[in-house]
Amino acid sequence: ERRYVIRLGCPDRAGVVARISGFLAEAGGWIVEAAYHTDPDTNWFFTRQEVRAESLPFGVDELRRRFGEVARELSAKSDWTVTDTGRRRRVAILVSKEGHCLYDLLGRVHSGELDVDITAVVGNHADLAGITRAHGIPFHHVPFPAADPEGKAASFAQLRQLVDAGSPDAIVLARFMQVVPAELCAEWAGRALNIHHSFLPSFVGARPYHQAHQRGVKLIGATCHYVTAELDQGPIVEQDVIRVDHGDSVADMVRKGRDIEKVVLARGLRAHLESRILLHGNKTVVF
Amino acid sequence: ERRYVIRLGCPDRAGVVARISGFLAEAGGWIVEAAYHTDPDTNWFFTRQEVRAESLPFGVDELRRRFGEVARELSAKSDWTVTDTGRRRRVAILVSKEGHCLYDLLGRVHSGELDVDITAVVGNHADLAGITRAHGIPFHHVPFPAADPEGKAASFAQLRQLVDAGSPDAIVLARFMQVVPAELCAEWAGRALNIHHSFLPSFVGARPYHQAHQRGVKLIGATCHYVTAELDQGPIVEQDVIRVDHGDSVADMVRKGRDIEKVVLARGLRAHLESRILLHGNKTVVF
Amino acid sequence: ERRYVIRLGCPDRAGVVARISGFLAEAGGWIVEAAYHTDPDTNWFFTRQEVRAESLPFGVDELRRRFGEVARELSAKSDWTVTDTGRRRRVAILVSKEGHCLYDLLGRVHSGELDVDITAVVGNHADLAGITRAHGIPFHHVPFPAADPEGKAASFAQLRQLVDAGSPDAIVLARFMQVVPAELCAEWAGRALNIHHSFLPSFVGARPYHQAHQRGVKLIGATCHYVTAELDQGPIVEQDVIRVDHGDSVADMVRKGRDIEKVVLARGLRAHLESRILLHGNKTVVF
Amino acid sequence: ERRYVIRLGCPDRAGVVARISGFLAEAGGWIVEAAYHTDPDTNWFFTRQEVRAESLPFGVDELRRRFGEVARELSAKSDWTVTDTGRRRRVAILVSKEGHCLYDLLGRVHSGELDVDITAVVGNHADLAGITRAHGIPFHHVPFPAADPEGKAASFAQLRQLVDAGSPDAIVLARFMQVVPAELCAEWAGRALNIHHSFLPSFVGARPYHQAHQRGVKLIGATCHYVTAELDQGPIVEQDVIRVDHGDSVADMVRKGRDIEKVVLARGLRAHLESRILLHGNKTVVF
Repeated sequence: ERRYVIRLGCPDRAGVVARISGFLAEAGGWIVEAAYHTDPDTNWFFTRQEVRAESLPFGVDELRRRFGEVARELSAKSDWTVTDTGRRRRVAILVSKEGHCLYDLLGRVHSGELDVDITAVVGNHADLAGITRAHGIPFHHVPFPAADPEGKAASFAQLRQLVDAGSPDAIVLARFMQVVPAELCAEWAGRALNIHHSFLPSFVGARPYHQAHQRGVKLIGATCHYVTAELDQGPIVEQDVIRVDHGDSVADMVRKGRDIEKVVLARGLRAHLESRILLHGNKTVVF
Repeated sequence: ERRYVIRLGCPDRAGVVARISGFLAEAGGWIVEAAYHTDPDTNWFFTRQEVRAESLPFGVDELRRRFGEVARELSAKSDWTVTDTGRRRRVAILVSKEGHCLYDLLGRVHSGELDVDITAVVGNHADLAGITRAHGIPFHHVPFPAADPEGKAASFAQLRQLVDAGSPDAIVLARFMQVVPAELCAEWAGRALNIHHSFLPSFVGARPYHQAHQRGVKLIGATCHYVTAELDQGPIVEQDVIRVDHGDSVADMVRKGRDIEKVVLARGLRAHLESRILLHGNKTVVF
Repeated sequence: ERRYVIRLGCPDRAGVVARISGFLAEAGGWIVEAAYHTDPDTNWFFTRQEVRAESLPFGVDELRRRFGEVARELSAKSDWTVTDTGRRRRVAILVSKEGHCLYDLLGRVHSGELDVDITAVVGNHADLAGITRAHGIPFHHVPFPAADPEGKAASFAQLRQLVDAGSPDAIVLARFMQVVPAELCAEWAGRALNIHHSFLPSFVGARPYHQAHQRGVKLIGATCHYVTAELDQGPIVEQDVIRVDHGDSVADMVRKGRDIEKVVLARGLRAHLESRILLHGNKTVVF
Repeated sequence: ERRYVIRLGCPDRAGVVARISGFLAEAGGWIVEAAYHTDPDTNWFFTRQEVRAESLPFGVDELRRRFGEVARELSAKSDWTVTDTGRRRRVAILVSKEGHCLYDLLGRVHSGELDVDITAVVGNHADLAGITRAHGIPFHHVPFPAADPEGKAASFAQLRQLVDAGSPDAIVLARFMQVVPAELCAEWAGRALNIHHSFLPSFVGARPYHQAHQRGVKLIGATCHYVTAELDQGPIVEQDVIRVDHGDSVADMVRKGRDIEKVVLARGLRAHLESRILLHGNKTVVF
């Protein structure tokens, strides 16, 4: 069933909910899911509404035009989107050698659970070309020369072109082991999702399982966050953990952690594609 | 900050959200929390709204009168309440010998986290009189004679009187080991919460940890549910589990399970007292 | 690093540990992992020991011969095995239409985490032929005619032949939706692992997510168990759960449950292949 | 049933297990629980063994003498203890204003689950005097003057005397909000357990829930660790987490976090008192 999804963030005041639901009611809109949140620290209001497309006498463009007026009326600072679930989402995936997240995503695409077009898989290694192509998805191998800044810049330029060619709604760093340049982070802002293999803010940067083993923690985790210019500092979308003990070597942690990485990434990506995430500073509201 | 809480369940149709939020907006009501749910199987709509009391020009009784009109207009089948967080909630607690749930609740009362009046603690054993009275709360010992139906009926009559005298908003069966008669279940319908020491519907009835040990499960759980005439069959409010393994004896399971029972009961009670639970047949919507 | 794994179950008495470790020490065996358990209800002793292969002056056959003497000396009722991690394990997988468990297992094989030979994938539907063959693994389509007992028996005979031809150490029912005949359960006893999509013993049999949705539970689960003649009653190897709420439809439960099914099956299979599971009546000891 | 518990850490080599179990077997010792671990990074071996007291022809002192010889024979670096479950453990508790951990521990003492003598509760505030004394346990109020180093030193001297007078096996910092001086950390090394209200190493120091809220994490946690001179850096004994979302204020996190703090502290203390923890550098082996 096709739906239009409205997301809005704006300064809070009495009557915001009524203004939005009144607007929708007037147009005959049937709300099938609605969520609200107010952040008291910043006095900011957030909402997400799903409306049955067929309940409205007009299409998504007209809804966007009309809702835009409401949003602007509510505040000049309103930040809003109107999306259409009838438009098939497009996803680009960046990988290195480790395939567990890619396998997981491909399995979800195959089953129809993740009902998207994978526009491209780009790897700085070729290890995952086979499984990608077995699904009829183009795989591009873009090597990233170590210790060669100019070469890396060229590689990122090529990667960017391959990704942007597909106009993806989401760019998924599925254990892509290169640090994305600030410029690209800016261009992909709010669309690039990374899976980091630790429970952030613990163990930022390289080899987090080694760090976790060293510290002797009793749980390890994974974090899905939006990519920003500061490494592993972007807004957190989803996290989860799994228990470990003294008997777990670093290799065991790597193995156990993968099961968490996969599911945390998949949940984060799903929330993103369903327009469930609203950004607010360096934090997320996930409806 | 004082709030009025509106709960409503009614048949779903377009415009319900707008009707409610329009009504509130007209009166100047500032909605600080709002939740919605539609059950597609029964086409039933549920909502819960928290409004700042001071944002309305009238009190809770007038809100109740006015909202009642809206609710009836939406449907003759509407089921709704309007409650006032400014009214202190009252809780009666039934216990036997095991004190872990009682201790947990008293600790929450002491810290102010559970900001209620405990009207009475009634025990079919006297073991927990001391800790109860140390908190300035009346403890009543009502013995339940085994294998004496008439004696039990008399005990339940006495217990009922002791409980009802406090007009409690919640009657908590905090590991009370007697089966409540159907008549009393009916009178306390929607107010009596039980904690069952299994992950229902597994292991209904007596000695669930023994049953769990016998079956060799790898997780044990606890379930907070409303009490109904059918033993352990009432609407489930909250559940949780904890891992066990082959090394855990029944006694270990009892011990580990207690930690789950406490927190599941506390969460269920909190949701009940904050008017977050809407009943729908034998299921709950917990906003 | 190659290791020999000793598993033993026998009546408990003082000195059992010393007898086994003394035997190993005498032969120069370097124990790298050792686990013990005593079941007080049945007075049964269980142990699992991993020994560095190179620390012994003889091979696995001689170890088996010598340890067998020790085991018999300890009790005529001893139940024991000696396995060699240097022997590559063989796994057959049975599937229907749903591919999430198969994808998950293939991903683990591809990454080397699950370092086994998949001898065959047999499906009563052909949906998963592509992904299987993309990994160079033979896929056999054996249709199971509905409501045709004779046809089903013939199909099971064919399936059995295809499975047994590979002499698998494990037969994995990865959401295989046919009830295995008692005779085949007996032949595959202790080798066939099923993933059931509920937290057993809740929701035995068909459509467990529908049952869970109907009952209004707040957690759903999955159970990996050995296959026995009684449906969903075999010894439980591993279980896990995930939170759901009133907003989750049956379809949402199916989707969320899959993530639990995958990981529960993978953990159960790993434990089985590493000879970590000892059966004791209808229960498991998982070291 | 009375048991002797042997803990040993020493350099690993072939035959260690056999030497220990052989020693016990020779004396007729019936091992009821045994655990082993080898740390490959440091080539260190750890074991913990529980022996039925009545199975040995001598008492704990003689066992200690004899096992000491074995331990020294294994290595001059051996670190070992022999404890007697028949000796009742003694626990001192340090608190400030927040009572949730104290209530939890007292509830466990009352039920017999935590079968210890609480030698003293010392608080830098008097809020928890009532509940402590209601259990017949002495409560000592030792104020800690803010911004007065000399006054603080005097308070710590007094606190130390009150604690040490009871010769406690464990000193529990149950949300005690003062930083323990290095000297006292040294004296109480391996006996003082703290509960920190974050998932360490995230959010060290003051107001961790505020830090967590600021960062926008999706899980909050608690950590039980041994107290060392470096704040929140001691060996981790136990950790757990609970889910939060954008709707949770700092106050909500504080409330939810308490439920984790209680159980993490209780588990850590139990492991400590049952001699299940072996220290190895800044890490723990918890058998």
